[in-house]
Amino acid sequence: MMTSHYTVADYLLDRLAEIGIRHLFGVPGDFNLHFLDHVISHPVIKWVGCANELNAAYAADGYARVMPAAALLTTSGVGELSAINGIAGSFTEYLPVIHIVGTPTLRSQKNGELLHHSLGDGNFSHFSHMAKEVTCAQANLTADNAAYEIDRVLGAALSQRRPVYLSLPSDVAQTDIAIYQGTLALPQPVLSPTALQAFINAAREKLQSAHRVALLADFLADRFDMQLSLNRWLAEVNLPHSTLLLGKGVLDETHPLFIGTYAGAASEPHVKECIENADVLITVGVCFADIITAGFSQNINQDNCISIQPEQARIGRTCFSQIPMRAAIEALHELCKTLQDEWQQPVITRPERAEPKSDVLDQQAFWYHIQQFLRPNDLVLTDLGTSCFGAGTLNLPSGCTYMSQALWESIGFSLPAAYGAQLAQPQRRLILLVGDGAAQLTIQELGSMLRDGLNPIIFLLNNQGYTVERAIHGPQQRYNDIATWNWTQLPLALGLGKESFTHRVTKVQQLQQVLAQIEKPQKLTFIEVVLPPMDIPELLMHVTKSIQRRNVA
Amino acid sequence: MMTSHYTVADYLLDRLAEIGIRHLFGVPGDFNLHFLDHVISHPVIKWVGCANELNAAYAADGYARVMPAAALLTTSGVGELSAINGIAGSFTEYLPVIHIVGTPTLRSQKNGELLHHSLGDGNFSHFSHMAKEVTCAQANLTADNAAYEIDRVLGAALSQRRPVYLSLPSDVAQTDIAIYQGTLALPQPVLSPTALQAFINAAREKLQSAHRVALLADFLADRFDMQLSLNRWLAEVNLPHSTLLLGKGVLDETHPLFIGTYAGAASEPHVKECIENADVLITVGVCFADIITAGFSQNINQDNCISIQPEQARIGRTCFSQIPMRAAIEALHELCKTLQDEWQQPVITRPERAEPKSDVLDQQAFWYHIQQFLRPNDLVLTDLGTSCFGAGTLNLPSGCTYMSQALWESIGFSLPAAYGAQLAQPQRRLILLVGDGAAQLTIQELGSMLRDGLNPIIFLLNNQGYTVERAIHGPQQRYNDIATWNWTQLPLALGLGKESFTHRVTKVQQLQQVLAQIEKPQKLTFIEVVLPPMDIPELLMHVTKSIQRRNVA
Repeated sequence: MMTSHYTVADYLLDRLAEIGIRHLFGVPGDFNLHFLDHVISHPVIKWVGCANELNAAYAADGYARVMPAAALLTTSGVGELSAINGIAGSFTEYLPVIHIVGTPTLRSQKNGELLHHSLGDGNFSHFSHMAKEVTCAQANLTADNAAYEIDRVLGAALSQRRPVYLSLPSDVAQTDIAIYQGTLALPQPVLSPTALQAFINAAREKLQSAHRVALLADFLADRFDMQLSLNRWLAEVNLPHSTLLLGKGVLDETHPLFIGTYAGAASEPHVKECIENADVLITVGVCFADIITAGFSQNINQDNCISIQPEQARIGRTCFSQIPMRAAIEALHELCKTLQDEWQQPVITRPERAEPKSDVLDQQAFWYHIQQFLRPNDLVLTDLGTSCFGAGTLNLPSGCTYMSQALWESIGFSLPAAYGAQLAQPQRRLILLVGDGAAQLTIQELGSMLRDGLNPIIFLLNNQGYTVERAIHGPQQRYNDIATWNWTQLPLALGLGKESFTHRVTKVQQLQQVLAQIEKPQKLTFIEVVLPPMDIPELLMHVTKSIQRRNVA
Repeated sequence: MMTSHYTVADYLLDRLAEIGIRHLFGVPGDFNLHFLDHVISHPVIKWVGCANELNAAYAADGYARVMPAAALLTTSGVGELSAINGIAGSFTEYLPVIHIVGTPTLRSQKNGELLHHSLGDGNFSHFSHMAKEVTCAQANLTADNAAYEIDRVLGAALSQRRPVYLSLPSDVAQTDIAIYQGTLALPQPVLSPTALQAFINAAREKLQSAHRVALLADFLADRFDMQLSLNRWLAEVNLPHSTLLLGKGVLDETHPLFIGTYAGAASEPHVKECIENADVLITVGVCFADIITAGFSQNINQDNCISIQPEQARIGRTCFSQIPMRAAIEALHELCKTLQDEWQQPVITRPERAEPKSDVLDQQAFWYHIQQFLRPNDLVLTDLGTSCFGAGTLNLPSGCTYMSQALWESIGFSLPAAYGAQLAQPQRRLILLVGDGAAQLTIQELGSMLRDGLNPIIFLLNNQGYTVERAIHGPQQRYNDIATWNWTQLPLALGLGKESFTHRVTKVQQLQQVLAQIEKPQKLTFIEVVLPPMDIPELLMHVTKSIQRRNVA
C-alpha cells in the first residue's frame, strides 16, 4: 500500500481494514474533513454519516457486536462529548470501538489558541482526560509516534475488547508516514502452565464428588469469542445450562438442556432450582449486576462455583491467575467428558408459552406472537424498558444473535445500534423491539436506514411513555409521559421519496396478519404496536419490585 | 417552608426558585424518580421532560440565556454523559446551568456495587471527574452537607456565570433536612479601591490624548449583566461601537453610532476602519476567538486598548486586578463624559442592504426579507452554519435578544435552545433560523414544543447538507450530504393531533407571502426554505477562507 504520499490517515485506515472493520461511523466536523478525504478514497473502509454523534457511537457499538471491532469519527470537543455516553456503554459492555477524534493542528494546540470547539482556556487536554475514564487506551497522535501509537491502541482495543481514543490533529492526518509495519501484532493473554495444572487438579476434585452440575454463561463469554468452544462443550457433555439476560444468545437455546434465562429471584422456578441447587455451578464470563439478578437476588453459594473470567479462574474462594478463558474452558470440557457419567442425568421440562385466547393486544399476547415469528439466524435487538424484559424470555432459534445493553442501560441505544448491526450484516433479518419512550431519544437514525436502503423490521411498542419507569416508581406521574408522536408518519417524514412498509396494530388479529406479510421484508418495515400503558412483562414485574426496594433502602 | 417532612429535595428546589428558576429540564431515570415526586409537587418549579438529555441540556442553556439561571436533571452515568456536551457549551459560553444528577444510594456507592448505569467496576467517581472538566463547582450531596454544599455550588454558578454539578443520591434526596438557612448569600466580586483609582488615572491619561475612540463589546458583557450600564454609557457619550458575533445583541443596534458586527478581516470596510484605526479602543468582555475574528485576523494593537473583563481591566499591557466589570464601566462612563468633547465626532454611514430584484431564492434574498420581518423584542436564535453567519449581519430592532453558540459551536444546539428560551418567555415572538444539517441532530424537541403549545417561528434552511462544511472543505464530497428528509411532514409526525402552520418556499414571492401570514403566529410555524446547496452568506465566505488556511497550516 506504499505510495509516494502515504499519510498517517492512510496508515490508520489500512490498520482498521486489517482488523476487519469495513465501515467508519460518524459526523463530519471541520477538524476531521481532511481525514475524511482519505476515508472516501480508501478501497475498503466506507463512510457512514449519522445524524448525530451519540447515534453514531451507538451504531458503532451495534456494529462491534457482530464484527471484530468498529470505528467512530467525531470532531474535537462538541462531537466527541456528544458521543461519550455511547463510548461509556461500549466500555462497560466490552465492545472494541476505535474512537478517532479530529483535533486542531498541533501548532494551534501548542500555542493554546482560543479556538471554537474548545473551552476557550487554551487547554486542549480536557477532553482526552474525560475519555480516559471510559476507554482502555488513549493516544495523542503526532507524525513521529503515529505508527507505534496506532498499533498499540488498536492492540489494546482488540485484546481487552474495549473502546480506545485516538486524537488525530488535522495536520497530522495529512503528514506523510514512512514505514508500514507489516501485520498488526496483538497482545496475547498470559497463560501460566503451572496455574492451569493447579486449576485442573482442583476442578477435578470438585467435579468428581458432585452429583448435580450446571453451567451459567454471560456476556464476557460472547465478547471473548467463546461461543464455539462453549457449544462444542455442551454438545459433548450433558450439562443443564443457562445465561443471564446480559449474555442472552451466547448459548444455543435450541439445545435440549438449555433451561432458560437466569435472573435470580425473578427466574422461572425450574431455572432457579437448577442453577441454585447445583452441587457445582460452572460460570463463564458472568457479572452478577443489579438489574439482571433482580437486585442481587442470586442465591448462589460461591463455595460451589467454578468461575471462569477472561484472564483468570476461581474455584470456590481460590483464585488461579494467568489462565485465559479459552484454556479454562477447554480444560473443563475435557474433565467433564471423563466425569459426567457419575453425575445425575438432568431432565429439563421447559414450560410451554400458552397461546392467548382473546383479541386483546397486551404484552403477553405480543411476545407470544413474536416468539412464533422468530426464525433461525435472526438478529434481535431490544432497547431498555419493557422490550428488553419481554424479549428476555423468548426462546431464540438457532443462529440468532441477541443484543441488548442490559448493564449500561442507556435508553435509546437500540435504534442506532440496529442501524450499525444491519449495515454490518445486511443479509440477515433484523428485528428491533423498541418502546416509544426509547425511540424518541434517537429516532433520527431511521432516516439513515431509509437513506441506505436497509430493510430492518422495527416493532415500535407504543405504551405512551416510560412504562419501565412507571413500573419502578410514579405509575401515574406525568414525568413518565412523553410527547405524543404520530408514529406511522415517521418513516415518511425521515425519508423523502423512500418506500417503507408501515402499519399500526391494536388487536391480536391485526398483528397476526401483519406478521404474515413481513416475514421476508423487501423494504424498511415499521410496525407500531399499541399496548396498554400500565401492562408490563412478568419478568420486569419481578425485577422492578427489588429495584424499588433498593432505591430507598 | 418548613414542614414536618422537609427534605433535601425540597431545600434544593426552594433554592432554585429563590434564584429565579421556574422550570427544570431533563429526562426521568430510575435514580431521580423520587426527586421528581418533589418537583411535581413544588409550587414554583415546573417539570419539563425533554426527548433526550443532550436536548434537555441545550434547552437549559437557551433558558439560562434569558433567565437568571437554568436547571437540568438527569440520571447517573447514561443521562449525565448524554448531556455533557451541552454542559461544556454552557461552560464555554458562561451560562449558569445547575446540573442535578440523580445517583445511586450512598450505601450502594460505598459498597461499590455492580450497578446498571455504572462502568461495572464499583467506582462511582468516574462521572464526577468528567464533570469537573466542564463545570465551575461540584458537590456530592449527603444529608449532612446538603444545605452548605447546595448554597456553595449555586453561589459559584451565579457569581461565575457557569454550570455546576450536583450529585444527588436517591436516598439523600428523600432525607429530612433540619435547617432552612434564609436568603442565599452570593459571593461578590472583589473591588480594590486602590486598583480602581490607578485604573482611572491611567485611563484618563490614555483617553485625554486620543482623537478617535471606539468601543467593542462581546458576550461576557451580556453574561455579567452589563447591557443596561453599557447602553446608558452609549446614550450619553458619542462613541462609535460594535460587537463581535458572539456578543451580538448586547448593544442596541438601532443606536445611530452602532456600526455593525466586527469580524476581523471579514468585517465590512467601515467597521474594520472604525475599530482598527481608533487611537483608543475600549473592549468590554471581549474574547478574540478564531471563527468570530475570521481566524485571528483582528488587526488591533493591544497598546491602544482599554480592556474590561469580569474581574480585572487592562490598559495597554498593564493589568489592574480586583476591578469588577461594573465598576470599570461606570468609571469609564464618567471619564468619557468629561473628555468626549476633545474627540473627533464620528459620522457613521452604514451601507443599505439592496432589495434583490429577481425571484430566485438565495441566501442574499432570504436574509433581506428576514431583515424586513424582524420586529422589536423578537428572540432570534441561530444555529451554526449558514444560518449563524447570515443572521450575524442582520440589524436587530430594539429590544431583540440574539442567541447563537458562536464559540463552542455545537451543531444542533439551536432547536432545543429555542424550546428552552420560548418556555421562559412564551409571550415574546421567537424566530429560529436553523439549517437542515443542524436540525437533524436534535429534531425531537419539535415534539416538545408542539406538546407544550408553543408558537415559535422556525425557518428550516434546506440546502441539502452541511453547507458550512462544504465552504470549509470538500464542497462535492458526500460526507457533507445528509439523509433527505420530508421536512414539512415533521410537525405532523412529531405532534399527534397538534396543529401547526407548515409551508415550503422555493421562490422569493412565496417567501414574501408566507412572511405576511405569520407575523403574529397563533401556532407553531415551520417554514422550509429551499436554498442552493453551494450558496453561502458573504460573511461566511470571508471567514471560511481563513479557516481553510489554518486547518492545514
